[in-house]
Formats: sequence, C-alpha cells, structure tokens
Amino acid sequence: MAKVQDRYLVVDPWRIVEDGFHPERSRVSESLFSLSNEHMGARGHFEEEYSGDTLIGCYLNGIYEEHYLKEPTTYKGISNRIAFMVNTVNWLYAHIELGGEALDLKRSQFSEFRRELDFRTGQVIREFTWTTKAGQRLKVAFSRFLSMKTKELGFQRISLTPLNFTAAIDVTLGLDFSVPHETYRQNFWKCPRSDAQADRWAIIGTSTGIKHKLFAGSRIMSAASIDGTPLKNAKFAGSRLTLNLVEGKEQHLDRVSVLYTTRDPKASVVDTWTRGVEMLDSLDQADYQSALQDNVDYWQDFWKKADISIDGDPEAQQGIRFCIFQMQQTYRGAVDGSNIGAKGLTGEAYNGNAFWDTETYCLPYYLFSNPKAARALIDFRLKTLPQAMERAKSLDCKGACYPIATTDGTESCTLWQHASLQFQPTTAVAYAIWHYVGVTGDVDFLYTEGVELLIPICRFLASRGDWSPRTHKFGYYAVMGPDEFQMMVNNNCYTNYMAKRTFTYATKVLADMDKAAPARKSELFKRLDCTAEEIAAWQNMADNMAIPVDPETGIFEQHEGFFDLPHLDVDAIPVTDFPLYHNWSYDRIYRNDMIKQPDVLMFMFLYNQSFSPAEKKANYDYYEPRCIHESSLSPSLHSIFAAELGLKDEAFNFFNFATRIDLDNYNRNTAEGIHITSIAAAWMNVVYGYGGMRSDGDMLVFNPTIPDRWKSYSFGIAYRDSIIRVDVSQESARLKVTEGAPIQALVRGRVREINEEGLTL
Amino acid sequence: MAKVQDRYLVVDPWRIVEDGFHPERSRVSESLFSLSNEHMGARGHFEEEYSGDTLIGCYLNGIYEEHYLKEPTTYKGISNRIAFMVNTVNWLYAHIELGGEALDLKRSQFSEFRRELDFRTGQVIREFTWTTKAGQRLKVAFSRFLSMKTKELGFQRISLTPLNFTAAIDVTLGLDFSVPHETYRQNFWKCPRSDAQADRWAIIGTSTGIKHKLFAGSRIMSAASIDGTPLKNAKFAGSRLTLNLVEGKEQHLDRVSVLYTTRDPKASVVDTWTRGVEMLDSLDQADYQSALQDNVDYWQDFWKKADISIDGDPEAQQGIRFCIFQMQQTYRGAVDGSNIGAKGLTGEAYNGNAFWDTETYCLPYYLFSNPKAARALIDFRLKTLPQAMERAKSLDCKGACYPIATTDGTESCTLWQHASLQFQPTTAVAYAIWHYVGVTGDVDFLYTEGVELLIPICRFLASRGDWSPRTHKFGYYAVMGPDEFQMMVNNNCYTNYMAKRTFTYATKVLADMDKAAPARKSELFKRLDCTAEEIAAWQNMADNMAIPVDPETGIFEQHEGFFDLPHLDVDAIPVTDFPLYHNWSYDRIYRNDMIKQPDVLMFMFLYNQSFSPAEKKANYDYYEPRCIHESSLSPSLHSIFAAELGLKDEAFNFFNFATRIDLDNYNRNTAEGIHITSIAAAWMNVVYGYGGMRSDGDMLVFNPTIPDRWKSYSFGIAYRDSIIRVDVSQESARLKVTEGAPIQALVRGRVREINEEGLTL
Repeated sequence: MAKVQDRYLVVDPWRIVEDGFHPERSRVSESLFSLSNEHMGARGHFEEEYSGDTLIGCYLNGIYEEHYLKEPTTYKGISNRIAFMVNTVNWLYAHIELGGEALDLKRSQFSEFRRELDFRTGQVIREFTWTTKAGQRLKVAFSRFLSMKTKELGFQRISLTPLNFTAAIDVTLGLDFSVPHETYRQNFWKCPRSDAQADRWAIIGTSTGIKHKLFAGSRIMSAASIDGTPLKNAKFAGSRLTLNLVEGKEQHLDRVSVLYTTRDPKASVVDTWTRGVEMLDSLDQADYQSALQDNVDYWQDFWKKADISIDGDPEAQQGIRFCIFQMQQTYRGAVDGSNIGAKGLTGEAYNGNAFWDTETYCLPYYLFSNPKAARALIDFRLKTLPQAMERAKSLDCKGACYPIATTDGTESCTLWQHASLQFQPTTAVAYAIWHYVGVTGDVDFLYTEGVELLIPICRFLASRGDWSPRTHKFGYYAVMGPDEFQMMVNNNCYTNYMAKRTFTYATKVLADMDKAAPARKSELFKRLDCTAEEIAAWQNMADNMAIPVDPETGIFEQHEGFFDLPHLDVDAIPVTDFPLYHNWSYDRIYRNDMIKQPDVLMFMFLYNQSFSPAEKKANYDYYEPRCIHESSLSPSLHSIFAAELGLKDEAFNFFNFATRIDLDNYNRNTAEGIHITSIAAAWMNVVYGYGGMRSDGDMLVFNPTIPDRWKSYSFGIAYRDSIIRVDVSQESARLKVTEGAPIQALVRGRVREINEEGLTL
Repeated sequence: MAKVQDRYLVVDPWRIVEDGFHPERSRVSESLFSLSNEHMGARGHFEEEYSGDTLIGCYLNGIYEEHYLKEPTTYKGISNRIAFMVNTVNWLYAHIELGGEALDLKRSQFSEFRRELDFRTGQVIREFTWTTKAGQRLKVAFSRFLSMKTKELGFQRISLTPLNFTAAIDVTLGLDFSVPHETYRQNFWKCPRSDAQADRWAIIGTSTGIKHKLFAGSRIMSAASIDGTPLKNAKFAGSRLTLNLVEGKEQHLDRVSVLYTTRDPKASVVDTWTRGVEMLDSLDQADYQSALQDNVDYWQDFWKKADISIDGDPEAQQGIRFCIFQMQQTYRGAVDGSNIGAKGLTGEAYNGNAFWDTETYCLPYYLFSNPKAARALIDFRLKTLPQAMERAKSLDCKGACYPIATTDGTESCTLWQHASLQFQPTTAVAYAIWHYVGVTGDVDFLYTEGVELLIPICRFLASRGDWSPRTHKFGYYAVMGPDEFQMMVNNNCYTNYMAKRTFTYATKVLADMDKAAPARKSELFKRLDCTAEEIAAWQNMADNMAIPVDPETGIFEQHEGFFDLPHLDVDAIPVTDFPLYHNWSYDRIYRNDMIKQPDVLMFMFLYNQSFSPAEKKANYDYYEPRCIHESSLSPSLHSIFAAELGLKDEAFNFFNFATRIDLDNYNRNTAEGIHITSIAAAWMNVVYGYGGMRSDGDMLVFNPTIPDRWKSYSFGIAYRDSIIRVDVSQESARLKVTEGAPIQALVRGRVREINEEGLTL
C-alpha cells in the first residue's frame, strides 16, 4: 500500500487534540472534530467568522435536495437525478467584535490555540488567546455539544476572559440559513417566517426543491438578562449582544438551539413553527453544565458496554475509540427511516448518500451492540421497497433492485457503469436479513417483513441473470462487482456467489414456512403471485450458478477472464499517481489485474465459514498483492484475513491504516468528511480480526489472537440477551458473560460454554 | 431484419419526385432533396416561410462551433467538448405576399404540389398552384442548385405565373443569419457588417465561439431593373421587391448568392468582406440558365464515367443513382482539409462529425473514381496528426489515436465508452494508407506522408495493448470493436486483427525503405527517435497477437467470452422495441450475443482475400443471425458476403435495404439527414457485391454475378490510368478498358488481361 500517514493531532486515549492551529489542514480538522447525534451533525467549523479555508456544515439526517442533470443522458435506466444532503442552518453562528476589530483567525493575532474533542462527553472545546491591534488580550473558548438525550438540541458556550483590560464586547449570535452548498455553490433555503428578540430567535427554512421544513430556534441560557439588539434579515435571525467584560474575570455566554423538522413536505409552516417554539420553551435542561452532564452520563453508559481498550498501543487505542465514537454518534436507530451516509453527517462528499456499506460494513457493529438499530437499518430497505421495485422496472427487470447510492430510496448515482451494473446493494439486503436473523434469532421478523424483501430480491436476481449456451450455467453478464476497477464483466464471482446464497436462503426460508408459518406463506404467495415453480426456478439457478474457480489452486477467478488480464505491479505505481481516478486515463484503470478493493475476499469474509483455511490462504495470497486499496473499505478486510491466516505483520499494518484512516488522513480526503463506513470496518477489524469472532454460523466463533506490540485488549459484545466481554493478553484470553445467560460458542475449534465465571484460554 | 420501408416518392431512374405534398414527412423530404457541392449544403427546406415542421439547414463544410458540457466529467481522458457543424445563413430566404396574404404551405390553400431533384442537373424544383383567400390563383415554382463549377455559388429562381389575375406581388428575398441550431436551440452568429441595396445585399456572420467568418452576398440576375426596398436588421440583409404580374405570363426572379469563408479565425472582417464582394461582382455566369448549363455539363461528364445502370429493377436503379449522386455532391476533394460527415451536409445529427466510415466505407468509392479525392481524405488525417497525438497522450498512451467523431481533428464524442475504447478510427487510417497505395501504386506518398502516419499509429497500438500472463499473447483489453453492442471487452477480434495487420504493414514498409528510400528512412528514424528495436517489438506483437478462433469450426470469436454469452433470438424482438437505445435499459443491450453491426465480418471484408471461402461461410452463418443492423453500415456488408457465398436472396434483400435506406426511410431517421456513409456502402454493394471486385491484393479481382430479378447492370471504375467498364447480364459478363492501358486482373479465378477489346465471360 502506497498510503502514507499525515499525523498532526496529539495521541491521547480518550480525546483528539489539536495543539496549535493548522490552517492548511483546516478542513481536515473540521471533519475530525465533527459532532453528530444521528438527528443532526455539525462539522468542526469555527463559530466566529473565518475568512480562511472552511466548509461550514450543519446537516440534518434525511434533509436533502435534488439536482437534475442539466444535460441528461437519454438512455433508458440511467438516473439523471442526484439526491444530496443539503447544508442547513448554521446554528453556531457568532460574530465577535472588540474595540471595533472583528475576530477572524485568518487575520487576527492569536496564541495558545487548542482544540479537543472528548469521546467521554461528546463535547468540542476550542480555545485561544486573541490579541487585538490595540493590544487587548482576550482568552476565548468555544464549547459545543449535541444532546444525545433530546436529539433536536444543540448547546453552545462562549467563554471570554479579558487578560489585560476591562471593556464592553459585542457578540452577535444567530441562526444563519444563508450558507451555500459546496458542490452546487448555491443556497437551497427560503425562510418564510422568523422572529428575533434580544435573547431568543427563531427562523424556519423551507428547502427550495423538496420543501423540507426546518425550524431553528435559539435562546440564551444565562440567568441574568443580557442587553441585546434583535437582528433579522431574509435568511438570518439573531441578536447583537453587549457583554461588559471585567479584567481577569471569565464570562460565559450560553445558548441552546432547537433544530426541529417534520421531514414531511406537506407539513405547514405554522405547525412546524408552533411545535418548534414549544420545544424551545419546554427545555428541561436548565443550563449548559447540566445538559452536558446528561451527555457525559450517556457516553459513560455507552463506553461501559462498547469500549474497546488496547493496552500498549496509544495510537490504536485512540484510533479505535475515535471510530466507535463516530459510529455511535452517527447512527443508533434514533431517527425513523434514516440510513448511514458514507461520510455520515460530517461532509458533503458522496452527497450524504448511503451505499451497500450499511449492510456489509456497518450492520455487524449494531448487531452486536444495538440490535434494534440493526433492525432499523433493514427497515430503511423495507420502507424504500417501492423505489427499489421501480428501479428494477427501469432496468427492464422484475422484483426489486436496491440503489447503489441513495438518500430517499431512489438511485442517486448518475453513472450507469455503477448504478446499472452493481448489484451488491441488492444482495447485501438479503445478506443483512440472513445475518440479522442468524444473530438475533428474530424469525418473526423473517416471516413477516424479511420475506417481503427476499421475494422481490430473488425476482430481480432471476430476471437479471441469464444462461450460458455453452456451459449451461446461470450467471450475471455485464456487471461490476464490489471491485470497481473491473467494469462490465461477466460472471463476477462475488455477484454470482451472493446471488446463489440469496436464492438458496430464500428458498429455504419459504420451505420452512410450510411448517412454521403456513397461513402467512399462503397469504404471501397469493398476494405476490408467487408459485412453487418460481421458487424451484430459483433453486435451479442457485444449483447451476457459475462460480469460476481454478480447480487446481482453489483460487476463485474474480470474473471470467480475470486470470488472463495483463499483470500490473501495484507497488510500482508512483505515489503521485494517486488517486488513480484523477491521474490515470479513465479506461486505463480497467485493463489489468489490479483491483480497487476485495471482491473474492469480500464474499469469503461474509460467508467465512463456508471456506477452508487453504482456500482462504490461496485467495488471499493471490488477490492481496493485486489490491490497491483505493477504497477505504479495503484494508480492514485484509487485516481480518491476515489475522486469521497468522500473517501478523500484514494484519497489524492493515489494522493501523483502517483504524486511523481519518486521524492520519491516509487517503488525503478527510477534508471532505469522515469515512464513517470504513470506521465501522475498524470495529470489525478488532472483533472479527483479532477477536477472531465469526457470526456466519449457528453459533458464534472466537479465535482470539493479539498483535505482538499490544500488551492486552478487550472488547464487549451484546449477543441475544447476554453481554460477552473478551479480554486478550499476550499470555491468555478470557471470555466472560457479564450479563444474561451463558452461551455456547465455538472457541478455538471446540464448542464451549461462556458464562459469568468466564472461560480462560 | 425487422426494418420496413416507408415509400412515398415516385420511382424514376434519374430523379426523385414527390407528387403531392407530404407534410408529415416534411423533414424526410428536406433531407432527401438536400443539395451540396462539398463547400456548402442546403437541406430541401422551403424558400418561403413554412410554419409546419421544418429544419432550415444551410451548412458550410468545416464551419463548426463547440459546446462544452455544462457538468463535465472529471475523469481523465474523457472529452467534455463537442465540436458540431453549425447552421449558417439561410441564403434561400423568401417571403411572398399577394394581396396582403403571406404564402405558407401550412396555412395557404394550394394544389398540384410537385417537387423533384434531378441527378443529371443537381437542381431541385418545387412547384404548386396557390389560391389566395381572395381567389387569386398563382402558379409558383422554386428552383435551386449549387454550382459544381464555382463552389461558393448558389442559384435560386422563383417563377410566378398568375393564372386568373393581374396584380403586383411583394417578394422579400434576403440572407438570414438568425436561424437557430436545432440541438442547442441557439443561434451562433453575430453580424458585424451588412449592406443592402434594392437588388443586391451582403452580410457577414462571425460565429460566436470559434469566430469563423462567413460572407454571404446575393444579387438579382434580371436584366431589367427591379423596384425594391432594402431591408436590414441585426442578422438579416435583403430587399422587398415588387413585381407586376400579368395574367398568364410567367415571370422569373433569379438570384445568385456567394457564400465565402476564410475558415481562419484570424481573418479580418474587412478582408473577408472585400473578397466576398469581389466574388459577387465578378461572376462569369450571366444568368440562371447558363449557370445551370454548367452544372448539367458537370453531371453529364460525371455520369458518363461513374454511372451504375441497372436494367429490370427501377427501384434499385433509382436507389443506386441517388446514392452515387449524394456521395459525389457531398465530397469530391474540392475543399482543402475537409472530411465526410456521417450525414454529409444534410442535417445536424451526429454533429456533422466524421467517423471511421470515411476510411472503411467511403474511401473505396473515391479510390475507384477520383484518387485525388481519396488522397485528400487521407490528408485530413495528416493535417490532424497533432490532435491525434494529443489525444493519445490524454489516454496515457504514445503515438497517435484518431478520434471516433471529429470535425477539427479533436475528439468530439463525450461518451468515454466509445471515445476511449474504440480504436477502429486509428487502424482505419493505416488501412486507408495500405488500400490507397495498393490501388494507386503511389509509393511516393507512402514513403513521405504515409510513414509519418504509420509510425505514430503503431506507437499508439503498441502502448495501448498488453500481454496476457497466461497465454503470453499480445492483445487489447477494455475495448469496444466496431460492434457497439459489445462494450469494454478483451481481445476484440477486429481490433486485434487490424492491429496485427497494421504492425505487419508498417514493419514491411519500413524494411522496404532500406532499399527504396534509405535517406528518407534515416531522416525519419532520427527525427521520430525510432529504432530497429521498436520496429522489432511491433513485429513481435503482430506475431503473437491474440486472435480468438474456434479451431474446429473456424469461427472467430468476436471477443474473448463471446461464445459463452447468453443467446438472444434477434428475430423475436418486437418491432416496437426499435431503436433499442431508446427502448431498452442501456445495460440490457450489452449482455447477450446480439451484435449491432459486423465486427468479425468487417475485418474479413477489409482483408477479404486473406480468408478462405469456408471461413467466410462459417463466420457469416454464425454472425449474420446475431446481427440486428442497428447501424446503417451493416446491411450492405452482409449483402456483399451473401453475394460471394451464393446466397442470392439474402444478398438481394440486404442490397435493397442498403440502396434505398433513405429513399424508403428504413431506419425512420432520414428526417435527421441522409446516411451519407451508408450510401457509400451501397456503391460497394454493387461493385464489390455483385461485381465481385476485390481490391485487397496485388491485382484487382472480378467475380461478377447478377440477381435473378435484373436483366443487366453496368458499372465503371477508374483504376490506375485506365477506365474499366463492367457489363453484366443474365447470360454473360463483359469487362472492358474504355480508356488507358490494358490491365491484368484475376477474373473468376484466372489471371486475365482486360483491354479495349473487352473480355467476355
């Protein structure tokens, strides 16, 4: 891997700390210091105006706009519409003036800059000392957090300490709907109603296309009344406050903001306003500190269950906690009908769209920490089934085809070579059902909602595939697998294998229903016009699925003809050529045996126990040197295989990359946002990689190992009604149920009981 | 083939005639009645205003504009600029008013409509009788032609005969630069200078982007002076003329127009104006009739040499003469640096761009009728070599890569799947050199200009191809061959075979130069930094080129894996599904064994004598049923093979399609313009198909056959310094040199001399 770290943050087990301002990495810091509570997110942009490089980003989950291509492709089945997460109101807006001079870290003189995000509080604090041209020295600290208790609330504190003067200072606070969207260089809001008083303001934004309504309201949380002049313009409501500063004395200016949205284009401005004002009036948090305490409690409780501790590797420790923190704040099943964007709520890249990463990379984290959240992710696909059926139709197919990129269930990728050729989102939904049911045992879900998805998915797969006249095998032609560096190939091994397993699973589930839920099955078959012949045809397709493999070596051929492709030594590619999409002629990427990310290894990971160690080794040895890891999803998967195969150095190197991909900006694109779904893979990297856990069988599997550099590590998982903690040191490993009933698991190849007493290896 | 004719024109051996107006086919007629003289072209649109469906189209060869995609693709090597032929000045503009009523065939009452284009004169006449609301009956006839003698001249005659009244009539004539471009719904002209007098007007247009300057000037050609009011506005110059009509007496209003352009963006308006006015002043044609006589002389002379006559099949006779007429008027080497657009100068489809059709479909016609014109077509590629080298660079390759679609030598196709994957334009240039030199014996050209092209072409082919690690064969990966229904495949047989022949030819030519032109070779090698090692590498690539073929059947596999593709019964596709690009999901086209046009058969045609009859039969039998002929280039190629293989019915059916593709609007898109390059294939269909001529060996080959339905047919070809005429009847065939020295040819398998006495078979 030609990826090199770019580290500038302080290594700390529970925090990320920027010591001294790094303006050239301004956007990277903004991404890293992002906050979210699933409902809303805010990049770590400055509160006060900053004329340097910045991307002011306040996003609300599910609040998007749409862009129709100006020169649409007229070929059928190609999406010409992009749904994208839209920048909303900057509720952190502050403008600070002292003696007529405005604070702006691009222009102002300042010292002792420090910024930190604490994973135990979810609070970001930024502080520095400002020296005005007149020589006044003011210590400034900005604090903020998003409530994990009441998701519509955001808190802000501005602390001011004059070090060498006593004077009044002007602080304008407000709610600013005028921020433009980065890609489209356009603002998507109109504000039909606003109100401003000295110490409270509110404004409603209606997005110009979709007509989302967003109420934003703020109020000052000080006990004493503050002098202020209300300010309003077309897209802004706020107040210019005057504070009398006294030398040496710290003063706080605290405000709470409500960001409330109905997410319903039909909701009226009046109703949204009324409800928003009600929320602003009825806050139960009396002040900043007590609200913060709620967050501290939330995170304390969370870390107790979900922490991964690593002793002996501070970088890894910080990295993995950062990953878990980001995962948890991005998604926890708190917002109905939401999904996980590739960058979460931390930036506008990938348009805020969710990909198949949700089911294959993120889901395991939730399956083993918060099954309800896992279920909610599957519910997103249920809710968007009509869109997926419409999409299949536009591709001249039957059933349901899930979009490669989506916000609202429709296909948001306008590149046909991805949107029309990649079917891993569709098979991933079936896989997620299988995985969810396997881990939770929730057959009720399976026989009600689950089958409602499995049938249209199989119908799509049956209609999209075809038979070879020469081999009489069923397969998929003109597809792109997960590896996006092999485009429009035939019989991509991943696609075919996943389809085979999907058919087999659906067929089995429907057969099981004869006994387990006959009435439901008969109702279902009637309603969906499903017959035994159709199911038998699926089984036939599964039985005769083309799975290209070299019988001598056991190496799966990623697609037909892959072994014949010209070889490229990926290590010989100059670092300056990356990212290849920018520096190589587009077609050049696609005509050799270089792969962007795991494809064969991907299905061998998903159905790990279906393959022998020898098969895994052969395929890892073949594909790993051909992989360029241009996808951030790639290294952790390789680390997990390397750990299983006993390749300790490789496992460790890939792990470092996966865990610190953003902290060390390995891909040089953290400025655009955090790689949220890759971060989920970092969790898997510990639990599946070093913990050796496998969840693709009838019982859990554990085969813990430990990198040489670590003294010990520990992680916990929720499984069915129990909590299991795994502690691994260089000497021994211990598995213990800390809550709930004992469980049976396959530990180092033997069925063992894990109970409260613990099992020491 | 699911193609059905739509015939409405009168069948006539020397003309096309529309008897009675067909407003629903208005644009089809406009295309069919198009005129051109290579320098300029005019669709058969009405002179007078017409509020029905129309595309006013006056084009000048090489006058184009450019469009940059509004949302460009950022991947490297993808063109985001389209150069397109731009609509210019409507120099035929006429507005006719009688008694306050304007003539408009959408609204006016009229009878006895008739329109004809005569291939012997190049004149279009349209006549009808107009009855005004007041009951005045006026016989109107519009005539027009473009001078084949002085290419800048266009002539127009308006004949008016009042049948039942005597009155004055107002006729406004002018030069109208305000016509918008159809696709971009925009006008691309500004007019910096104009002048109008009663009987002459001039105006200069400067195109808004490229800054082409086009002078248009008209003058009335009547002896007597005419009353007129000059008219001018921003983009128009003309005059409102009053004619006193006398019952029963025909009056002509004749004008000549000069369309002059420097084709140089730096040319000044003043210079262009001066030269234009000079031309308008110095016309040597005194009147309409004598100018027309010049055209009649030109065409008489032309038909004497180039006519194909068919006895016993009036439809074929009309069809083939229409094709030859269109070819000849579109291109004859009269304009320096021009090429042949897919629709010639008859419409805006394909943006007026030239494709590889020029070298593979059009060139043979010129090789055997006008070798200088053939040579001029190759010169276009020489002139645009710098652009082709730039293009290769943008594709991360060496040498020269010729564009798939071009006007100015740059790549004008913004679809990467075509522009970055199709290399037949590049190999076609090498093929054209080989073919041109073989037919003309012009080795001077070969050793000077020819090699200047062959070397960079080989360099491109060497850098774009690669070696398979398994087969150790050289080939091309991620390509699209001529058949555009198989996208991004490996080792496309056509691409590989053409590259192999190109390498072999270039290597041989360079070896020959050791004796034939050693000084030139040494200068060339030094200047181009060419070494013996490089040439040897090309030979090695040629020797080891992958040519997938089934050794048992002799069937070439169109690309690796083609034989494994799901089979589609193309005859079962409903007619309503065509064109497939509009009605099928884009990806659906690419995942079966259906082909759009010949690919394997294409190279077997180009290098016909390199393949045995058994090979041709096996491949024709395999590919013909899989071909859907969505390319208009397809049927004639199949007809030629069918004729060679003795499949008389198939040959005849394909021939009918090819010859009357536009006259009978088989593809339902003649409205967009004439399929000029397909029309060239119709010529080949007679000469190579029924005439059995082959020109890919050391001597010409003739194997004449004749369809059952025909009594006889005859064609002539120019070869080296001789003219050969071939007359074939059901009983016998006769080959005769009518001019020049006798030639040796392979006739029905034996070397025979063809001389002035003639050879009867």
